[in-house]
Amino acid sequence: MRGPAKTQLSKVIFAIAGFDPSSGAGATADLKTVAALGGYGVACLTALTVQSTQGVRRTESLPAWLVRETLIALAEDTPPAAIKIGMLHTAEVAEAVAEFLAGWREVPTVLDPVLRSSSGAELLDAGGLAVMRQRILPLVGWVTPNLAEAAALSGREVGGPEDIPNAAAELRRLYPQLNVVVTGGHLAKPDDYFLRSRGSGGEGVWIQGEKINTTSTHGTGCAFSTALAVSLAHGAQPEEAVRAAKDYVTGALLHSPGIGRGRGPIGHLWRVGTSSE
Amino acid sequence: MRGPAKTQLSKVIFAIAGFDPSSGAGATADLKTVAALGGYGVACLTALTVQSTQGVRRTESLPAWLVRETLIALAEDTPPAAIKIGMLHTAEVAEAVAEFLAGWREVPTVLDPVLRSSSGAELLDAGGLAVMRQRILPLVGWVTPNLAEAAALSGREVGGPEDIPNAAAELRRLYPQLNVVVTGGHLAKPDDYFLRSRGSGGEGVWIQGEKINTTSTHGTGCAFSTALAVSLAHGAQPEEAVRAAKDYVTGALLHSPGIGRGRGPIGHLWRVGTSSE
Repeated sequence: MRGPAKTQLSKVIFAIAGFDPSSGAGATADLKTVAALGGYGVACLTALTVQSTQGVRRTESLPAWLVRETLIALAEDTPPAAIKIGMLHTAEVAEAVAEFLAGWREVPTVLDPVLRSSSGAELLDAGGLAVMRQRILPLVGWVTPNLAEAAALSGREVGGPEDIPNAAAELRRLYPQLNVVVTGGHLAKPDDYFLRSRGSGGEGVWIQGEKINTTSTHGTGCAFSTALAVSLAHGAQPEEAVRAAKDYVTGALLHSPGIGRGRGPIGHLWRVGTSSE
Repeated sequence: MRGPAKTQLSKVIFAIAGFDPSSGAGATADLKTVAALGGYGVACLTALTVQSTQGVRRTESLPAWLVRETLIALAEDTPPAAIKIGMLHTAEVAEAVAEFLAGWREVPTVLDPVLRSSSGAELLDAGGLAVMRQRILPLVGWVTPNLAEAAALSGREVGGPEDIPNAAAELRRLYPQLNVVVTGGHLAKPDDYFLRSRGSGGEGVWIQGEKINTTSTHGTGCAFSTALAVSLAHGAQPEEAVRAAKDYVTGALLHSPGIGRGRGPIGHLWRVGTSSE
């Protein structure tokens, strides 16, 4: 009788995120990303959506007690080596997540500060934004806003790449422990800007990106922040982790499964070479 | 500027299933299975659970209208090449799924008739079992019960392998269109029994399994039924599809990520060779 060949345990990554039935974004996309990068992903859902590649039709809240109970059950059994936080949806759920994070300060945490879907749906209410600012951003080690999110969180206008360093600096002034990556995937030159936490010193750096000619861009932000969390769980240095996450997303954009009539999903499993994803 | 290298579209597999935060079973495990086997999975959640490798702590129903709306949104955008059905939980959700299946008779459908978790939690209520018998089993092409499920659905006692052919024959008598695979993973000799639908003729065959020495067996039924659906979507012949699904699960049992204190997950991505899963 054979037994498992494997002896090394996988690193467990927590994905705290919404549910997207089309699996281009949200918790299930995060789990595919984690699996593709050699970790083991578990997930706590914060909200349900009805969506396809054609956009978000509906978002349904989940009760904060369910989020709390899920995070406790998971952490008791499979403690996190890193935590990725995506859509939070409501103030109550954001509070539950903040409470949880307070108990895991030593673990790398990446907040993808999701405010709105690419199709325009609001994914965090006003109370939730306040909780994100006051309780979550002071607790996490990393934040990965796109341009609109960087503007909303920093209070600075971000019209183009020239405004990004100021917005990132303002975010780090407000939260000195924060490593900031402003993702520029929507820019003509899709470079990311990385500013390390105040303690680590140093200037911001631009991480060069490659523009990929595709309409399958649904969930790139989810994939980037999750890939970053996996790299950090595996012990990567900060800049190395950012570059690895950017490379992962570029490859996934090049290997889309080609489904759907709208903004299709990226190919989360491209690096491990299944025939399609 | 580069564009995607891929030109062949992926086959879309629908996973209609519950949500397991530990991702050993349910919709997220199904999506990993589909991805590992080269399809693209989308998911409609039927219920939420709080669980870890140590068992199911709670199950929460989802409203049937949400299931209906999700299935419609997905089918309009990414029509299924195969459908896998797992946990249904309530009669109302089972009705919504039956309505949906009625519109997709030409697509391979695999029902994993989940009644109870390995930890003993009831995952389908009495009304749901009635809907499964009366409305879903007449519509699906495949059913993959374990011994207890085969007994419950056929009304025959199944104490050991010698009782399986009778139970399978009774199921096929009740539902002549049904291909029946009784999964024997819990047996000392873990062989599956495969009986083709009445129209295809032929005797039942035993598909030999290999006993793997592991406690990481959470979600083997989900993985088997999903792998079967992916093979059918890709055009495999019936017996070939059953054998491929069995081989997939055997490999996944040998490559567990080794996490959790209870019945750990299997290694869904073993065949594509990530470092852990």
